[in-house]
Amino acid sequence: MLDSKQADCQADFCWPVRVYYEDTDSGGVVYYANYLKFLERARTEWFRNLSFSQNQLLQQQGIAFMVRSVNMTYHSPARLDELLCVNTWLARQRRVSLTFTQQIMREQQLLCDAEIEVACVDTQRLKPIQVPTELIAELHGDC
Amino acid sequence: MLDSKQADCQADFCWPVRVYYEDTDSGGVVYYANYLKFLERARTEWFRNLSFSQNQLLQQQGIAFMVRSVNMTYHSPARLDELLCVNTWLARQRRVSLTFTQQIMREQQLLCDAEIEVACVDTQRLKPIQVPTELIAELHGDC
Amino acid sequence: MLDSKQADCQADFCWPVRVYYEDTDSGGVVYYANYLKFLERARTEWFRNLSFSQNQLLQQQGIAFMVRSVNMTYHSPARLDELLCVNTWLARQRRVSLTFTQQIMREQQLLCDAEIEVACVDTQRLKPIQVPTELIAELHGDC
Amino acid sequence: MLDSKQADCQADFCWPVRVYYEDTDSGGVVYYANYLKFLERARTEWFRNLSFSQNQLLQQQGIAFMVRSVNMTYHSPARLDELLCVNTWLARQRRVSLTFTQQIMREQQLLCDAEIEVACVDTQRLKPIQVPTELIAELHGDC
Repeated sequence: MLDSKQADCQADFCWPVRVYYEDTDSGGVVYYANYLKFLERARTEWFRNLSFSQNQLLQQQGIAFMVRSVNMTYHSPARLDELLCVNTWLARQRRVSLTFTQQIMREQQLLCDAEIEVACVDTQRLKPIQVPTELIAELHGDC
Repeated sequence: MLDSKQADCQADFCWPVRVYYEDTDSGGVVYYANYLKFLERARTEWFRNLSFSQNQLLQQQGIAFMVRSVNMTYHSPARLDELLCVNTWLARQRRVSLTFTQQIMREQQLLCDAEIEVACVDTQRLKPIQVPTELIAELHGDC
Repeated sequence: MLDSKQADCQADFCWPVRVYYEDTDSGGVVYYANYLKFLERARTEWFRNLSFSQNQLLQQQGIAFMVRSVNMTYHSPARLDELLCVNTWLARQRRVSLTFTQQIMREQQLLCDAEIEVACVDTQRLKPIQVPTELIAELHGDC
Repeated sequence: MLDSKQADCQADFCWPVRVYYEDTDSGGVVYYANYLKFLERARTEWFRNLSFSQNQLLQQQGIAFMVRSVNMTYHSPARLDELLCVNTWLARQRRVSLTFTQQIMREQQLLCDAEIEVACVDTQRLKPIQVPTELIAELHGDC
C-alpha cells in the first residue's frame, strides 16, 4: 500500500494525543468517530512540520484538502487518560489528491490503522484543483 | 428572571433529544459540554418555529446570533438512550441581544437549567447589530 | 456488496438528520468525522425499529456492538440546516459480526456511502461473542 | 471571587490548546460548546500537575469530579489553527466541591472566562462525597 520509495525518504512522523473525557463514550472507550479527529490533528501537524500551513493555504489561495475516502480498521480500543501516538505517512501523491497511511498506537500496540485520501479543492468553486507546486516541492525536499 | 408578560404570551416550546453514544462519556453519562449542543438545537428549532431561519439570516443579511454567556446548573445526569426534552423560553429581549431560559428534562425531572445570552452580530465586521425588526415582529406576533 | 436475498426481504430504513452548527466546521460544511455520528444514530434506530434496544442488550447481557471497520466515500458535502436522510441495510450477517451498508442522502443526491462492520462483543472480557439469537430471529422475521 | 491566599500560593498553570477543524463551526470560529472541552483538558492537566490522576481516583476509589455549574462569558472568538492558552486557578475549596476560575487566552487577549464548580461524587451511589484528603494535602503542599 505504501510506495516504498516514498516511505524510504520520509522520516517517521508521530503526533502524541492524550485521551480526555470528551473523546470517550459510555462503553468506556474512545468513541469510534473521534479517532478521525486524532487522525486529522496528526495530518495537520504533518503539513505544519513541512512548514506548510493548511490555514494559510485556505486564507491566501482559497485551497483546502477535503477528505474523499476513509478506510479504517479498529483493532483494540483506547481508554481515558491514555497517551497515544499517531503515525502518518504519505502513501500516494496524485495530481489532485494525496493519500495518507496512518496508525494510532499505544506504545507498541496498534489500535487503529487507516488509509485516508484527501482531495485538493478550490473552495470557491468546490472543484478539484492541482496540489500546489510549493507543497510538492516540500514533499520532495523531504527526501 | 423570566419577564412575566413575555412568559404569558409564549406557548411552551419543547424539543425532543435522544441520547446516543456520541453524547456520552466514559463516566456513563452525557458529557457536560454536550448539553450545550442540545440547548442550541432547541434554540434553532425555536427560531424555526417562528418561521425564522437563522441560516437564511446568515446567508442573506450576514447576521448571526453568537452566544455571549452561559449560566448552567447540572442537577442530574442523562444517560445513553434516554429521550430528553429541551424547554426554551425567551426571557429577555434587548436591542442587540436575546436571553433564553432553557431546561433539559427527562419526563418530569429537571436535569439541567441554563440562561443563555445570544448577541446579534454583523458577521462581516464582528460587531453587535440590532435584532432584526422582522424577528421582533414575530416575537410579538407570538403573543 | 449487498446480498440480494437480504436486500429483498428488507424494507428501506431511512433516518432523518438535521445539520446543526455543532456538526459543521470552518470549511462551511459538515466535519468529516461527524458523518460517522449520523451513521451510528441511524444504526441505533435501525435496531430499535426491530424492537431491539442496544442499551438493554448492554445492561442485561453485557453485550455491545463495536465497530470493527469503516469504509466510507465522501461524494458531496452537507451544509448547515440541511435535512439529510440516512439509509441503512444489513449487508452481511456472520456468526460474530454484522455488516451494514449506509448512505447519507440530501433528497435524491448521494452525499456519502459507507460499509460498516460491527462485531458483537462480550464487554466483560472484551471478546467476540455470537450475535444474540433473539436478534437473528428478528432479522429473519423482517423478511 | 478568587480567595487571595489561595491565589498567592499557586503558581500560574497554563495549558496550551491548538484549534483544529474539529473545534470550529461554519461561523468560522470555535463552536461555543467546544471551549468547555478546552477547559476540561486544562483542569485534568492541573490535577495531573499535582501528581493526581483523576482516572486513578475513578478506578481505585470510584470517585469522580462531576461538573455542577458553569458560568462562562465569551469575549472574543478563537479561530482555526490558533494556539490558545487555558489558565486555571482553584478559586474555592469546600468539603464536597472545588470551584475553578479559568481563562482562555490568545496571547494577551482574553477570549473567554469561566467559573466551574465540580462536585466530588461517589460514582457507585451517585452521591456527593468529601474531597479526598490526599488531594487536599496536595493542594496545601502547593503553597
